[in-house]
Amino acid sequence: MGKLTSTEWALASRPVGMPKLSDFQTKTAEVPEPADGEIQVMNTWMSVDPYMRGRMYDRESYVPPFQIGETLQGGAVGRVTASAHPDFKVGDLVSSFLGWRTAWTAKPAAAAVQKLPASGLPESAFLGVAGMPGLTAYAGLLRVAEFKPTDTVFVSGAAGAVGSTVVQIAKIKGATVIGSAGGAEKCALVKSLGADHVIDYKQAKGFDGLVAALKGAAPKGIDVYFDNVGGEILDLALARLARRARVVICGAISQYNTTTAIEGPKNYLSLLVNNARMEGFVVFNYMARYPEGMQALAAWVAEGKLKSKEDIVDGIETFPETLLKLFSGENFGKLMIKAV
Amino acid sequence: MGKLTSTEWALASRPVGMPKLSDFQTKTAEVPEPADGEIQVMNTWMSVDPYMRGRMYDRESYVPPFQIGETLQGGAVGRVTASAHPDFKVGDLVSSFLGWRTAWTAKPAAAAVQKLPASGLPESAFLGVAGMPGLTAYAGLLRVAEFKPTDTVFVSGAAGAVGSTVVQIAKIKGATVIGSAGGAEKCALVKSLGADHVIDYKQAKGFDGLVAALKGAAPKGIDVYFDNVGGEILDLALARLARRARVVICGAISQYNTTTAIEGPKNYLSLLVNNARMEGFVVFNYMARYPEGMQALAAWVAEGKLKSKEDIVDGIETFPETLLKLFSGENFGKLMIKAV
Repeated sequence: MGKLTSTEWALASRPVGMPKLSDFQTKTAEVPEPADGEIQVMNTWMSVDPYMRGRMYDRESYVPPFQIGETLQGGAVGRVTASAHPDFKVGDLVSSFLGWRTAWTAKPAAAAVQKLPASGLPESAFLGVAGMPGLTAYAGLLRVAEFKPTDTVFVSGAAGAVGSTVVQIAKIKGATVIGSAGGAEKCALVKSLGADHVIDYKQAKGFDGLVAALKGAAPKGIDVYFDNVGGEILDLALARLARRARVVICGAISQYNTTTAIEGPKNYLSLLVNNARMEGFVVFNYMARYPEGMQALAAWVAEGKLKSKEDIVDGIETFPETLLKLFSGENFGKLMIKAV
Repeated sequence: MGKLTSTEWALASRPVGMPKLSDFQTKTAEVPEPADGEIQVMNTWMSVDPYMRGRMYDRESYVPPFQIGETLQGGAVGRVTASAHPDFKVGDLVSSFLGWRTAWTAKPAAAAVQKLPASGLPESAFLGVAGMPGLTAYAGLLRVAEFKPTDTVFVSGAAGAVGSTVVQIAKIKGATVIGSAGGAEKCALVKSLGADHVIDYKQAKGFDGLVAALKGAAPKGIDVYFDNVGGEILDLALARLARRARVVICGAISQYNTTTAIEGPKNYLSLLVNNARMEGFVVFNYMARYPEGMQALAAWVAEGKLKSKEDIVDGIETFPETLLKLFSGENFGKLMIKAV
C-alpha cells in the first residue's frame, strides 16, 4: 500500500476541569510510505483511558504533556500495511501508543510497537484484559501489593477495566474480595465476576454508611486496597485497614478533573497505627514482566476464568465524546473505539 | 523499703484541641510492698512525648485510650526499691511504661520492664537517644525506609528527639541529609549534627518558597522522607520525590491537636507517578530488634558520633505544662522530667 490519509485528533485548548468537546480539534495527515526501518500501520482499535486526562495538563509527569495542535497519543492495535523493517511483514498485528489517529508510519522502537502473538483472542483483548489494563491489574495486585491468597482484598472502580480484572485475579488466587462500584448494574457485574461482597457507593448513606458496609463485608479489616478512585473511597479503605495492610494507588478518577486542590486522604495516619503502606505505580515500570503477565492473562481468558466487558464505540470521529463517558460514570466496561 | 506514696497525674477531662492545664488532675497513691513476682520502683526520669496526645482521644488505636481519672502512662526510667522477683534486685536500673507517677509496684512483664545494661551512659539516655526515640529513628530509617547510603534523605522535625537521631544515623551511614526545623536556633542545631542542608520552615515564603528551598537542596529529588510533622511539610516532600522514593510516616505533630478533620496529603498522587511508597510504623512492632538497635545506638554515643540534646524539666508537678511545650514549638531537644 502506498500513501494513506490519517484522521487524527489534537487538543484545540487545554481543558479546565471537565473537558469540553471544543477543547479538541480533528485534522488529517498524509501517512508516507515507510523509509528504511519503518513500518506503516492502519489502526483497527484504539483505547480510551482515564490517564489521558492527566496528559492534557501542562505539567511534569512520567510522560510529557500533550501539546496543543499535536496529534494525541494512546494505546492502539493495528495491522501492518507496508514494511521496510526486517521483523515486520504486511498483515502483522501490532500494538503501539499511536492511537487517536487512523494510520501512521514510524520506527517500531519509537512507537513502543509490540508484535502481538497468534493467540485466538479477539484483537480488542490486547487493549483490555490482555493489554495495558490487564497488565496493570496483574502488576498492581501481584507485585506492588505483594498479594497473598489469605488476603482480604478491597477494589474500587471494580466494574472498570482494571478493577474488574483485579477482582477476578484475586478470586482465581483464592482471596476474599470486596468490590465497590456505582449503581445496580455495575454492582451486578462485579458480583457476577465472583466478588464476595459488593458495595454500591451511590446507595450508601454518607461516609458512615460506607464504613458500616465495609465493616460488615470485612469485619477484621482489609489487607489489600486497590485504589482506582481516590477521594472518599480511599479514606474509607484507610479507615478499615488491617495490620500491615498494603494500599495500591493505581488511579484517582474522582480527582482527575478537579479545578481545586486534590483531596488528600484525611485518614492517612491509619498507615502509622497499622504499620501499613501505600504505594503508587505506573505499569510501564513493570515492562520487563509484560510477557509473563500477558501469558498468564491470556491463559485465564482461554480457560474462561477471566472475563472482560468491553464498551465499544464505532468510529474515530467520536473520540472526544467517547473520552467524556469515562468521567460521567456512564462508561461500563473497557472503553475502546473500533476504527475500521 | 516499705510503703511509698506516689504522686501521679490523670486526665480530669478529655482535651479538645490543644490541651489545657485544667484537663489534668494530680493525685497520690499508696505503693504497696511487692507481692510474689512483683517489683517496687521509684522513677528517676519520665519521658514526655507527642504520641501521648493521641491516647487522650477516646478512640481505637494501637494502644487503648487513657481513661479519665486513671493514672496516665509513659516511658520512665527508675531504680528498684524492693523486689519479690528473682531477676531483679534493689538498685537495678529499669525502664518501663509506668511514667506520670513517682513510684509503682507491678509485675515486670505487665509494665514492659527492661533491665538496663551497665553502659556508662547517663540514665536519661534510655529515654532519649538509646531509648524509644532513638530506636524509632533506627527502625524507621533502616527498616521501614530500607535506607541505602546513596539516598538523599529529608527529615522534618529535625531538631526533635527522633528527627535529630535520624539526621545523625543517615550521616553516619554516608547519605546526603536535609533537615527542616522552625527557627534559627533549632536550624543551627540540625546543621551542627551534620545535616548538609537545613530548611527553616518559619523563614520560607509560603509553600512555593518551601518547594524552592527543597529543590535547591536536592535538585534530583529526595529518596527518603522521614515525616514527624505531617501537614504542609508532608505535601512539600511529596512534591519533590525521586523515583521509587520511600516516605516514612512516623508522626504528625502538626495534626495532633486539630479539632477539624486531619489535613490529608494533597500531593499523594506523586506516589503514583514516581512509583513511590508511604509507610507508617509504630516502633513497638520492631521490638524484636531492640537489642540490636540499642547496642548500635549506645556504641555511636560512646564513640561521640551520635549526640543528643535533652530538654530537662525538674519535678513531676510540672507534667501538664511540660507536655504543652511539645505543641507550642517551644520544646528544644528530647523533653523529659527529672523526678528525683
